Amino acid sequence: MESLKLIKAGGAIIEDPEACAALLKDFAAIQGPKVLVHGGGRSASALAARMGIPVKMVEGRRITDSAMLEVVTMVYGGLVNKNLVASLQALGVNAVGLAGADLNLILCDRRPVGEVDYGYVGDVRKVDVSLLSLLLDKGAVPVIAPLSHDGKGCLLNVNADTIAAEVAQALGAYYRVSLEYRFEKEGVLDSNGNLIPEIDSDSFISLKASGAVSGGMVPKIHNALEALGRGVGEVYIGKTLIH
Amino acid sequence: MESLKLIKAGGAIIEDPEACAALLKDFAAIQGPKVLVHGGGRSASALAARMGIPVKMVEGRRITDSAMLEVVTMVYGGLVNKNLVASLQALGVNAVGLAGADLNLILCDRRPVGEVDYGYVGDVRKVDVSLLSLLLDKGAVPVIAPLSHDGKGCLLNVNADTIAAEVAQALGAYYRVSLEYRFEKEGVLDSNGNLIPEIDSDSFISLKASGAVSGGMVPKIHNALEALGRGVGEVYIGKTLIH
Repeated sequence: MESLKLIKAGGAIIEDPEACAALLKDFAAIQGPKVLVHGGGRSASALAARMGIPVKMVEGRRITDSAMLEVVTMVYGGLVNKNLVASLQALGVNAVGLAGADLNLILCDRRPVGEVDYGYVGDVRKVDVSLLSLLLDKGAVPVIAPLSHDGKGCLLNVNADTIAAEVAQALGAYYRVSLEYRFEKEGVLDSNGNLIPEIDSDSFISLKASGAVSGGMVPKIHNALEALGRGVGEVYIGKTLIH
Repeated sequence: MESLKLIKAGGAIIEDPEACAALLKDFAAIQGPKVLVHGGGRSASALAARMGIPVKMVEGRRITDSAMLEVVTMVYGGLVNKNLVASLQALGVNAVGLAGADLNLILCDRRPVGEVDYGYVGDVRKVDVSLLSLLLDKGAVPVIAPLSHDGKGCLLNVNADTIAAEVAQALGAYYRVSLEYRFEKEGVLDSNGNLIPEIDSDSFISLKASGAVSGGMVPKIHNALEALGRGVGEVYIGKTLIH
């Protein structure tokens, strides 16, 4: 089975011109099939502010009302995605920018309203990478925006980490997939700010218990461990190997 | 050779919910390979106004400075394109939204500064539909936004009529292509507002001389006649057959 590298780049990298240029140079140098999944939350918040649309967050998660759905569709699907594609083309990478609605790649259900109404936010129902793998076979390099659809004509905002994990798992049927989450830090850091070189399900439990990892890093590691159990060969969070 | 239908839908259709729904229903009903190219100028102007970015036009053509390039990238590549894709997916069409930078579909040169500096506007240099035709073969339906790139990392705004004609010509190597320009009118109208059922290069000369066709319709018919000479099987401007 051929190897495939899927890199998910967080907003803080994508939105910092120097960090983004370094990422794209690294990415362009990867041999063989590869996929880039990107965020873009800060740009979305900046556009919303400029348009006078209030940004609502609950525990770090964006509430996507219809005005905010338009904003993320423009920023993730348009501004960020197409600029990444143009930059990669300039580096000789035959990039193709896609959202989850394209090729019916990622079909979602709108998240049911519970204690919080997240609005137009999708939970993944079904991933179909058959045409994506065909494009990969022909040397095309998918660049995927964190947007999807409900199959009934409505776009949905989807967490980019989740999209990365789901696409990586689905591509596991075609390739030996290595998934890497790149973000503004070196990797998973302990409470002293030192890199934790590797984490497995046992050490994750003790790191959580001691409070050494907390906040948004907990679901990230949880998702990484889950992806490993579902056909992804290896996962890195920055330089931290999750196994 | 298999037939392929390429429809270019102008902004006035795309941006009117009823007209757009009717167009997409028609489009979904077309059997066999098909492509949709869309505009979106009014939405771009509306977003620019909301963001306080002045809209500059010279003889009906948009001046695309860097702020306006961001606007059209968001509106054409994101908002309009991804919503069309989601709507088509809901109609059972396996749409894939692309801009000219994707798959290096349409490579452009930035228009040289002459009497007018149009800014980030592209003139088509090279069209490569090899991967597009592969997607078409597999039943995918491209939805193309009027944006492209210069191969050096810069996106460019490109006239949607031009993109439609160029892609139609390039697909002529693979399919018997029928190109149709849909817009807010029934077709090419004479000075009394009656539909002209067909126009050839001879009648075009007399229609221009008499002033029966004028303004933006002149380059549209000119482009249509050119496309016919370059591998496109038939062209319709609305219900007017150009031959």
